[in-house]
Amino acid sequence: VFRDEYFNLHPYDRAQFYFRLEPEQRVKIYEYLSPEEMGEIIENIEADDEDYEPLFAEMNAQYAADTLSHMYTDDAVDVLNELNKDQAASYLTIMDQESAKEIKNLLHYEEYTAGSIMTTEFISIPEHSTVRSAMAILRNKAPDAETIYYTFVINEDRQLVGVVSLRDLITSEEDRLIKEIMSDRVVSVSVSEDQENVARMMKDYDFLALPVVDFQQHLLGIITVDDIIDVLDEEASDDYSKLAGVSDMDSRDRTPIRAARKRLPWLIALLFLGMLTANLIGSFEDTLEQVAILAVFIPLIAGMAGNTGTQALAVAVRSIATGDIKDESKMKLIIREAGTGLITGTVCGILVTGIVYVWQGSFFLGLLVGFSIFASLIVATLAGSLVPLVMHKFNIDPAVASGPFITTINDIISILIYFGIATSFMGYLQP
Amino acid sequence: VFRDEYFNLHPYDRAQFYFRLEPEQRVKIYEYLSPEEMGEIIENIEADDEDYEPLFAEMNAQYAADTLSHMYTDDAVDVLNELNKDQAASYLTIMDQESAKEIKNLLHYEEYTAGSIMTTEFISIPEHSTVRSAMAILRNKAPDAETIYYTFVINEDRQLVGVVSLRDLITSEEDRLIKEIMSDRVVSVSVSEDQENVARMMKDYDFLALPVVDFQQHLLGIITVDDIIDVLDEEASDDYSKLAGVSDMDSRDRTPIRAARKRLPWLIALLFLGMLTANLIGSFEDTLEQVAILAVFIPLIAGMAGNTGTQALAVAVRSIATGDIKDESKMKLIIREAGTGLITGTVCGILVTGIVYVWQGSFFLGLLVGFSIFASLIVATLAGSLVPLVMHKFNIDPAVASGPFITTINDIISILIYFGIATSFMGYLQP
Ligand SMILES: [Mg+2]
Ligand SMILES: [Mg+2]
Ligand SMILES: [Mg+2]
Ligand SMILES: [Mg+2]
Ligand SMILES: [Mg+2]
Ligand SMILES: [Mg+2]
Ligand SMILES: [Mg+2]
Ligand SMILES: [Mg+2]
Ligand SMILES: [Mg+2]
Ligand SMILES: [Mg+2]
Ligand SMILES: [Mg+2]
Ligand SMILES: [Mg+2]
Ligand SMILES: [Mg+2]
Repeated sequence: VFRDEYFNLHPYDRAQFYFRLEPEQRVKIYEYLSPEEMGEIIENIEADDEDYEPLFAEMNAQYAADTLSHMYTDDAVDVLNELNKDQAASYLTIMDQESAKEIKNLLHYEEYTAGSIMTTEFISIPEHSTVRSAMAILRNKAPDAETIYYTFVINEDRQLVGVVSLRDLITSEEDRLIKEIMSDRVVSVSVSEDQENVARMMKDYDFLALPVVDFQQHLLGIITVDDIIDVLDEEASDDYSKLAGVSDMDSRDRTPIRAARKRLPWLIALLFLGMLTANLIGSFEDTLEQVAILAVFIPLIAGMAGNTGTQALAVAVRSIATGDIKDESKMKLIIREAGTGLITGTVCGILVTGIVYVWQGSFFLGLLVGFSIFASLIVATLAGSLVPLVMHKFNIDPAVASGPFITTINDIISILIYFGIATSFMGYLQP
Repeated sequence: VFRDEYFNLHPYDRAQFYFRLEPEQRVKIYEYLSPEEMGEIIENIEADDEDYEPLFAEMNAQYAADTLSHMYTDDAVDVLNELNKDQAASYLTIMDQESAKEIKNLLHYEEYTAGSIMTTEFISIPEHSTVRSAMAILRNKAPDAETIYYTFVINEDRQLVGVVSLRDLITSEEDRLIKEIMSDRVVSVSVSEDQENVARMMKDYDFLALPVVDFQQHLLGIITVDDIIDVLDEEASDDYSKLAGVSDMDSRDRTPIRAARKRLPWLIALLFLGMLTANLIGSFEDTLEQVAILAVFIPLIAGMAGNTGTQALAVAVRSIATGDIKDESKMKLIIREAGTGLITGTVCGILVTGIVYVWQGSFFLGLLVGFSIFASLIVATLAGSLVPLVMHKFNIDPAVASGPFITTINDIISILIYFGIATSFMGYLQP
């Protein structure tokens, strides 16, 4: 009865149920379920919940290896990449050798490439088949293939030459040749393509699966839309974390120690940068001692520079991530950002001059603070957009130029501007 | 020849080609293409590029209305929502009345709900049909339906009772009843469900389409995976923008004025908050005049508080967005963040005490700055996680509590702590 009920659940719910059990109860599950059934469950554990090591450690080695060999190769590869090297290697030794070979092939592809997220359980048909024989292949392979809704067409050399959808197949006459009904402008990706670009393509073209080819157009695997959703989510989460200055966010960080470990490296780096700022202000101690009121506006000026810098940074990083920025348009972005800095700087500068003048009764102080804001905002906006563009140029992920870093750098620049001007015009400031 | 070549392109490439033409050339396209062909192109313009108003203004009104009536209803609704009210209303009047009615129904659903992104071109079959008759319906409706890979099964009252995939259909015997082969544990969403939750479900269950029902389980429409990808991308971009303090980012913001218009409201709000900070420091002017060196550490302390606050904020917002936070776990998050603040505060506090002592030669100054960092980091971490949780509680999108706001609030808190302590222990500080 339990078995019936359990199999009535959607595989995702089955996975959730399994995943939330206590270890002692999970051990019983391994007796109930075949490695094939277990494989389907592991496939359906969502990637962001993944913590496969304890789960596999609970199973006996042969059961674990069999489970892996029954999984879609892309998911098996994901699991093996998470396990420790020895454990992974031993499973590959005792698993059936055909699966092991396929998995090993996939393990070679670099992380974050198309090859690392593709699966080899796809259906391909020769271009000279008929619709009838293609449907027979589909019916036959349906239980094993990741998707049967797109079928890729190959020539004698196993090169990709076309694609035909199940929609086309069921609405075509059975005697027609695949060659006639397929679309020969098939969009494919190279096995070494960055997963983010693959995701972008899938989003634009609304595909359910994309074929992956080597440099000679040989069909190597397919990438399905469900895995692309995970990629998009992962990449978005990654950019978001970096903007906030956290190495990554993980639902597994349940203890303060794990959480602190991810934030401290950033904080300590920023602390040293902050010390530089302190040192810088220290060098203006004479100025400060004479006109203590100057200190009052430090956080305002530094804060505003930090905020504009973060805005410009976010816009630039996002434009790069969405592929809106091509080489020709980089110059355009910089010019636009310079203009934007000029406008925001002017507006905020005038506003601040007025407020400080009214509040402190010193027009010169107002002008000093206002002009510092004006100049800082322009420089900060430019810095915020230039840094990611330059990083992108040198093939560094621009998202690494996180918000806190740009903020701290802009703190330094804005304080230099502020105290630089103040020191030069000391005469006007003293009471 | 041009026509052949053009139709050989994928609809997305056709849309890109059309979209990039000069207005004068586009006018020629309208003569070449039927409204139905035009509809497919408009459907394939990606949502983030959308700027439909000028495109539709170029067409004559009847052609525009016919184009809309040939589009999938969800895409037509997206376009109409972007056009100005009068233009939209006039198209609805002259378009064929059946399409107009369906579109008007969809226009009623609130933005960001399942209803606003669903389409009505789905295939449903009665539970008592056979596989054979279901396949006949599918073949017949294939040209019009958004997807034929999932078919939803309804009873006599049009209530959703099951789902059957095309994979199941083509591998089942033709005489079997749909009722027997369908899955009756069908996952559906309510028409008023938030689109972000729908997207989360699609990601977890790996569906290609989800049925949308009213409160009596009547099947109203379906949501397809390609539209969910757009939702996820939009929501991620939205959270990212808000963390950076930009209302939204848009590839259409090509002029500095448009870009500045999106950033200035935030900057001006932050400017007034910053003035508050200035005012606050101003109230400690006496302290500052006596010990000018205090000013040196303002940006360090405020900056560190801002950085930790942003980290904690980002983690909390992300946990809420991914649905990791349920009511029971809010308390857990707060406790964990308090612990994290304690650890990061202690480490950074000790580090700073040491550095300042060595650098300035005053152990008391070191202790003052170090302790201020310690206390600020704890408070900032708590503030960073409490603010989004409280906002979520009151049904406000927590992403609105942007990085810059939290940063500025934490500036204020940390300065209060720093000068508060400094003023109390003035005696120890004076040279
Ligand atoms: Mg999956
Ligand atoms: Mg994978
Ligand atoms: Mg990448
Ligand atoms: Mg799309
Ligand atoms: Mg997969
Ligand atoms: Mg990235
Ligand atoms: Mg700051
Ligand atoms: Mg689309
Ligand atoms: Mg839509
Ligand atoms: Mg929402
Ligand atoms: Mg998934
Ligand atoms: Mg759609
Ligand atoms: Mg959101």
